[in-house]
Amino acid sequence: MRYMRTLIKDAYIVTQDPSREIIQGDILVEDGLILKVGKVYDSADREIDASGDIVIPGLINTHCHVSMAILKGIVDDLPFDRFLERVFQVDERRTEKDILAGARQGCVEMLRSGTTTFVDLYYAQDIIARAVEEMGIRGILGWAVLDPEFTTQSGTPMDNCKRFHQSHRGSSRVVPAVGLQGVYVCSTETFLDAREYALANDLLLTFHLSETRKEVSDCKRKEGKRPADYLDGIGFLNDHCLAAHSAWLTMNEVRQLADAGTKVSSCPVSNMKLATGGVAPIPEMLQNDVTVSIGTDGSTTNNSLDMFGEMKTLALLQKSSRWDPAVLPAQKVLDLATIDAAHAVRMGDSIGSIEVGKRADMVILDGAAANLRPLRPDNIVSNLVYSSCGLNVKTVLCDGVVVMEDRQLVSVDEEEVLNTAEEAARELLG
Amino acid sequence: MRYMRTLIKDAYIVTQDPSREIIQGDILVEDGLILKVGKVYDSADREIDASGDIVIPGLINTHCHVSMAILKGIVDDLPFDRFLERVFQVDERRTEKDILAGARQGCVEMLRSGTTTFVDLYYAQDIIARAVEEMGIRGILGWAVLDPEFTTQSGTPMDNCKRFHQSHRGSSRVVPAVGLQGVYVCSTETFLDAREYALANDLLLTFHLSETRKEVSDCKRKEGKRPADYLDGIGFLNDHCLAAHSAWLTMNEVRQLADAGTKVSSCPVSNMKLATGGVAPIPEMLQNDVTVSIGTDGSTTNNSLDMFGEMKTLALLQKSSRWDPAVLPAQKVLDLATIDAAHAVRMGDSIGSIEVGKRADMVILDGAAANLRPLRPDNIVSNLVYSSCGLNVKTVLCDGVVVMEDRQLVSVDEEEVLNTAEEAARELLG
Repeated sequence: MRYMRTLIKDAYIVTQDPSREIIQGDILVEDGLILKVGKVYDSADREIDASGDIVIPGLINTHCHVSMAILKGIVDDLPFDRFLERVFQVDERRTEKDILAGARQGCVEMLRSGTTTFVDLYYAQDIIARAVEEMGIRGILGWAVLDPEFTTQSGTPMDNCKRFHQSHRGSSRVVPAVGLQGVYVCSTETFLDAREYALANDLLLTFHLSETRKEVSDCKRKEGKRPADYLDGIGFLNDHCLAAHSAWLTMNEVRQLADAGTKVSSCPVSNMKLATGGVAPIPEMLQNDVTVSIGTDGSTTNNSLDMFGEMKTLALLQKSSRWDPAVLPAQKVLDLATIDAAHAVRMGDSIGSIEVGKRADMVILDGAAANLRPLRPDNIVSNLVYSSCGLNVKTVLCDGVVVMEDRQLVSVDEEEVLNTAEEAARELLG
Repeated sequence: MRYMRTLIKDAYIVTQDPSREIIQGDILVEDGLILKVGKVYDSADREIDASGDIVIPGLINTHCHVSMAILKGIVDDLPFDRFLERVFQVDERRTEKDILAGARQGCVEMLRSGTTTFVDLYYAQDIIARAVEEMGIRGILGWAVLDPEFTTQSGTPMDNCKRFHQSHRGSSRVVPAVGLQGVYVCSTETFLDAREYALANDLLLTFHLSETRKEVSDCKRKEGKRPADYLDGIGFLNDHCLAAHSAWLTMNEVRQLADAGTKVSSCPVSNMKLATGGVAPIPEMLQNDVTVSIGTDGSTTNNSLDMFGEMKTLALLQKSSRWDPAVLPAQKVLDLATIDAAHAVRMGDSIGSIEVGKRADMVILDGAAANLRPLRPDNIVSNLVYSSCGLNVKTVLCDGVVVMEDRQLVSVDEEEVLNTAEEAARELLG
């Protein structure tokens, strides 16, 4: 249901505006936009009583493979080569039906845990786009491009990517993007073709970068350079780029990303669970003005799409690996998942904070929940990052539309989505 | 309310029995004990429909300072010395009233997230015991003993500890224990006095061990040995000991703990958040048959009492620090929080698994929740460890009593508890 004017009343509003102000007040939404923030005396078609609750900008998950949500819990605790072998085996057998079922499952998980925008990297984005439209979430969908000899896609991946873009222009919630699998399956020519198309069409260009040591050592053997250094050398890196993982980087590579304006999606849980060894050098990235954001990665490597858990783990990993508890304070971690992420996906003008004129992507958390109490203006951000979990989310607005209210998805039959996903998993996995 | 016979119907039962069997069936509880597990045709005074849900043994949090729950979110992201300074400042001002309010707040958080037993280390356990009785949780309450010159307790800490034990014998849910602050404020004599009393009275003896590098280097300077090595040398270590943190240990010290039968409570989130640098050598502990369990530590260092989050972080930290994704598989992590923890607190015969004859400490999770789906017998344990969160818990039984049903605390006015805690925090912190 779309309402003309929606009024959220009497909340703690974590605006994430430039001064990171937290105010107690109201938010008026009209036609998908935030019209007023503060004390609002206007009437509205619909009022949401958020007294004692917390409103934050919708979280932005900048690296995900959403349709893998149905593969949760089937490839855990394995050595990395056996993990890959098993994932590839399953991936080869995937059908349109189970990709759709997985994407719907994943979108439900994300909405329930307060994510309103996600970046996806996968083939079959035309199918995933259907789930995005149905669920009312915002999807930045990067069609995975790789060299033709490595793909199971029918047709040429770059052509498929272009076709997907051309058939999905102009939607406010389905945002086509160009994906690249990574240096291990993409030639210089593939990288540069993708770059050219993305820049010509002003599309986000997202790819895996320096996730594993093997990726780095193979690239050095093949190209004589480490992955980011190589991508810099061929003139690929630019300000439309969003590099996922970016764990095994030298200081020189961090500066190369910075100089090019390339953004990063750090995936701490995935990196830790797969034990890839690298820790993204986030303090150095921030010192060099690289825009950093957070991604859950897919459900085989996490196995959760809950960005609250991801924020906490990112903070813990950075602090513990630096032996410095002051690294990445809670406010900065929340920034990475909201306003910084909005900049990372080149939507900093329209989402990522609660400010007049922005799209109304907002999440209301239950301020009465025991795990968030005691709640005071001076511990709200800490509690969001260190004490919360996705299931504290009560109500979600995406693009001005209330998609979940009081923990009920509004226009989706959740039970049907989850049962269909379970059935699809059964068919796929036996 | 206490029911004579309670029947949980038609659940996935993660028994944690010796063969780690997962069965679909029913559980009959009578007078606090598990009477039958499997297909049950008996009638009961009360039936709980758990169709599609997951039943697990109540989780056991083996290191906590529960009354600090009201201090959540006030000392984050600080260098360690400033963190300690601020915590000590607040701690000095604490009153009976706010200790009780904090303990009640913390017990609510634990019940809500599926913890039915916790080990606490603090002074004023007589006050905390009142919260435990009221809330219906099981508390193993270690009165903190330290050298008289370091304490703010009135009277001698060891005498206070004895008095607490003598006035709280014989309760099934309040279990007195002997606590020790750690090598930095306890002399050899204090350690040995505490040991003697604990062994003479068959009490758990719990203490901080090798949490920080400073603790280790100070102990080496003062005693010429590392902490565990020193405690071994003075003949302190024994099978009633539960050593919290135990992060900075040599292999020799791991063997000393093993030889003495001393158990460990690992606190991964606290160690990471405070950036103490150490990672408990859990694989070596397990190889040497040291019983390992998991603790959240207090709410200033975590800031959550959710053992589901703690299980996931423990797995992630071990995998990532060893560069080995196969270390600490999900089943073993669940063991640490249930049956192994029961052995760690010397209650392996009565709690920690769902088996006939054990006390009925059980937790029912919502099997319909999106983040736990798809759910199949072969991914339940993975989903519990990697995909769940405390708020998936619907219903909790402790000692046979239903203390939470369908997310409602049964005999406690939760709103009053949380409001009282918030008020107490306001008075304490200004």
